[in-house]
Amino acid sequence: MTEQPLPVGPADIDAAARVIAPFAIRTPLLSSPVLDERVGAKVFLKPEMLQRTGSFKFRGAFNKVSSIPRDKRSGGVVAFSSGNHAQGVAAAAKILDMQATIVMPSDAPLSKRERTKAYGAEVVLYDRDREDREAIARGIAEKRGATLVKPYDDPFVIAGQGTAGREIAEDLAALGLAPDIVVAPASGGGLIAGVATAVKARYPRAELIVAEPDAFDDHRRSLRSGHREPHAPAGRTICDALMALMPGEITFAINSRLLSRGVTTSDAEVGAAVAFAYRELKLVVEPGGAVGLAALLAGRLNAAGKTIVIVLSGGNVDADLFAELVA
Amino acid sequence: MTEQPLPVGPADIDAAARVIAPFAIRTPLLSSPVLDERVGAKVFLKPEMLQRTGSFKFRGAFNKVSSIPRDKRSGGVVAFSSGNHAQGVAAAAKILDMQATIVMPSDAPLSKRERTKAYGAEVVLYDRDREDREAIARGIAEKRGATLVKPYDDPFVIAGQGTAGREIAEDLAALGLAPDIVVAPASGGGLIAGVATAVKARYPRAELIVAEPDAFDDHRRSLRSGHREPHAPAGRTICDALMALMPGEITFAINSRLLSRGVTTSDAEVGAAVAFAYRELKLVVEPGGAVGLAALLAGRLNAAGKTIVIVLSGGNVDADLFAELVA
Repeated sequence: MTEQPLPVGPADIDAAARVIAPFAIRTPLLSSPVLDERVGAKVFLKPEMLQRTGSFKFRGAFNKVSSIPRDKRSGGVVAFSSGNHAQGVAAAAKILDMQATIVMPSDAPLSKRERTKAYGAEVVLYDRDREDREAIARGIAEKRGATLVKPYDDPFVIAGQGTAGREIAEDLAALGLAPDIVVAPASGGGLIAGVATAVKARYPRAELIVAEPDAFDDHRRSLRSGHREPHAPAGRTICDALMALMPGEITFAINSRLLSRGVTTSDAEVGAAVAFAYRELKLVVEPGGAVGLAALLAGRLNAAGKTIVIVLSGGNVDADLFAELVA
Repeated sequence: MTEQPLPVGPADIDAAARVIAPFAIRTPLLSSPVLDERVGAKVFLKPEMLQRTGSFKFRGAFNKVSSIPRDKRSGGVVAFSSGNHAQGVAAAAKILDMQATIVMPSDAPLSKRERTKAYGAEVVLYDRDREDREAIARGIAEKRGATLVKPYDDPFVIAGQGTAGREIAEDLAALGLAPDIVVAPASGGGLIAGVATAVKARYPRAELIVAEPDAFDDHRRSLRSGHREPHAPAGRTICDALMALMPGEITFAINSRLLSRGVTTSDAEVGAAVAFAYRELKLVVEPGGAVGLAALLAGRLNAAGKTIVIVLSGGNVDADLFAELVA
């Protein structure tokens, strides 16, 4: 019995890499002797806070928005997002001279709302507990003839995020190294799906691990059961970027095949990781971007003696929260 | 009439690059679309906060400490420093299994004192206003048979710092670009002397500019007069790393030949640059490391339309000051 082909393959990521190259930052692969010594491993960090808009989201957003046929571009784009996808879509639309409308929760970090507006997008706020962001976005899309740019459950978006994994694989190959473990956070799972696709294409034996906040462990649950499962209700986390209810359909089709397992971290561990990144790495990581590093520092990855890559997925964090975490 | 050869040449920097390669981080060259758009130039950042110990100082310190003959290593090393050179020397000595004693001002940032101790060095505090740090360090060196590792006025130290410039030149060449302007901060002038030597070797037409705090403008004064001159007395600045009284003798022999001019920035401009780096670059820059960026953002570099490199020299800043600056 042969396996079904996955909805996104390495060739899609190669194509995405060509599309985004003129506008995206090719982020470096960083290392830190202090971190290596602390965890007893050879650690590489993929610092996506250095990406355009301050998170990996620009990659997928630009690849998707670029795929919209020219005769449909006048209607603009619409997206729902807690903040990083919002900025990615807004920046992509601006480059391609399109209108963007972003539906954001009213409790999204102020800096994410402000930065989204700064890219020229119209921001529509909704109540996270009482309104359906997808319905609002679809309503706007219909009324304006706009194209909906989903945050993760879209092959173009996943392929775009996968360019981060492609760069990881390229840079490790240039160093003559193979990764034992690659870790990335997940909300809907687009980043880790793309990264896993690219990394596994070159390094089939690499172990791909998804990192989540304790209370938002839907990927871990779903990987265990083999079915898409929501996280438990009413959880809270400082990881505002990682609050999707359950894995995406397309992303889970990929992740259930390519990922090994999930790990989770407490808010306290995430805060410690943000502070470590400030103090020792000199990088600004947002809470949601630090869950993989948090899992590593908390000893949850069996990293000793291994070559391990941690994706730091973004750095858009309000200054007051950041100050509190690094104090 | 032919010019005298300078005390440090490109071959010394090539040699230093080989010496430090196994232990130093080869920092990337970063760019930011937001920054480019804001200043209307193609800007590259050399993020030396990503260097081992959080500043460029490890480069020169390791090159110098490595040059100590084996039969003199048992006496250890001694250095005087406000904090970044301290960490560089302490880390270099630890790698080479040598004792390090560091003479630091009692008002040095807490994080710099703590980090220096964390590398295993003994820290001796002195009063910046009433004691002579060089005399204290020399006393310790004589008593213990230790080798004094000067912070800037040493050809090995300058050659080590120059490896940052060598990497800038290599990375720009790989992109097919030539820099119009390269900016670095100066306290005693070792970093800019090394960077200028390496950059001018490949790009003789590049304009090298030294950046300083308003009240510590000894390089600018000295470049204007052609003689080493101290800054005005009793100045204050948040740039704790840039408070040397006047340019070094060896560094000025190089800088007076290779630099075009000096620019200065106010503490308010430096604070704004630290905040910009937090918000848009997602990098932790200490005040002294941000003077070049501050000069760029304040419009003091005639950058429009040019290809410009800014060295961000370090990121060791106490969390409370950082929080205040980015608020």
